[in-house]
Amino acid sequence: MADIFAVIKLILRCMNYPSALIEEAVNELSKFPGIGKKSALRMVLFLLKQDESAVSRMGEAIIKLRKEIRFCERCNNVSDAPLCNICNNPKRDPQTICVVEDLRDVMAIENTSQFYGSYHVLGGLINPIQGVGPDQLKIDSLLKRVKGMEVKEVIMALSATMEGDTTGFYLSRKLQNLDVKISTISRGIAIGGELEYADEITLGRSILGRIPYKA
Amino acid sequence: MADIFAVIKLILRCMNYPSALIEEAVNELSKFPGIGKKSALRMVLFLLKQDESAVSRMGEAIIKLRKEIRFCERCNNVSDAPLCNICNNPKRDPQTICVVEDLRDVMAIENTSQFYGSYHVLGGLINPIQGVGPDQLKIDSLLKRVKGMEVKEVIMALSATMEGDTTGFYLSRKLQNLDVKISTISRGIAIGGELEYADEITLGRSILGRIPYKA
Repeated sequence: MADIFAVIKLILRCMNYPSALIEEAVNELSKFPGIGKKSALRMVLFLLKQDESAVSRMGEAIIKLRKEIRFCERCNNVSDAPLCNICNNPKRDPQTICVVEDLRDVMAIENTSQFYGSYHVLGGLINPIQGVGPDQLKIDSLLKRVKGMEVKEVIMALSATMEGDTTGFYLSRKLQNLDVKISTISRGIAIGGELEYADEITLGRSILGRIPYKA
Repeated sequence: MADIFAVIKLILRCMNYPSALIEEAVNELSKFPGIGKKSALRMVLFLLKQDESAVSRMGEAIIKLRKEIRFCERCNNVSDAPLCNICNNPKRDPQTICVVEDLRDVMAIENTSQFYGSYHVLGGLINPIQGVGPDQLKIDSLLKRVKGMEVKEVIMALSATMEGDTTGFYLSRKLQNLDVKISTISRGIAIGGELEYADEITLGRSILGRIPYKA
């Protein structure tokens, strides 16, 4: 079975494209995470069937995105202005900071409509295997914010993975001498989730971390 | 369960993007087949982490692809010149034409190194549900080729789907009065395939269409 995959990979690598333009577009599109050469070729065929103006619009949206995007000077969230909508909103509490990995997490928490503090976007998680250390993340600016702005609480909303836990532990060590409350989002069985289908580690932790019953 | 999906869809539709640039890029990228808003957002985040020059290269490759692509005047395959590499190759037999749906099929057959004729790329299959009729496909130019170039055989290498069979049937009716042999690629159990796992229709057809045993 492994041999078959090796042969398929070899064929894909040796694929002869009928046009240099197609080869270049396939190579570029297959850089996206989760998009291989076959999916990229499917995307190229889709592009060939579209109007020239529609394809230009797509290409320009990509170029413009990277060229004109700005990041909030305070929280590193993406923004069209120097300060993002959330940092600029006087109704949001700047003394409660929710630390997240990236933009998607901000959007996910915003969609809950349950949080009225501000955010700090790290831009990644500590991941030694992929060569991401604390220096590549926006940790220094978080520490400056905590020191300079009378922050009361830092909530860590990081993924429950090895990388998330490592980053959380690193941050907690950096923050422990500053006068700030540190908390993390609760872990446990999802709302609507059935115990039977929960994995052992989640179920075990949710028993150890049990909370008083509120009727 | 259906309710949960409806709610998820509603949330996705109401998603508030923190920047107009991101919203535009997500909308454009989610036009690709099989790419939804969530995958597009993942692609956008990937782009934000790349160098500006790399992202420009990708955007320009997409724009250039659509702007500069040319199609072979004879077979409608993509090409960098008026005639494609295959039509231009004197070693290829122009009197045997393999009719395929699109570029991917040409590449798949070329990778087998078993076919030395020429191709004709229809650019799609007859699909009344999606509004694709025979007029949108390159059928007229195929008929002209068959009439004008002393073609001996037309091999139909179309997908074994409703659309492929419909298109094959339509073509066979159009070609039947011309002095040309019409054939179709053989259907049956794949090489290395186990009977146990083959679907009933394929297995049934491969029994009806059995061939003399060659030792």
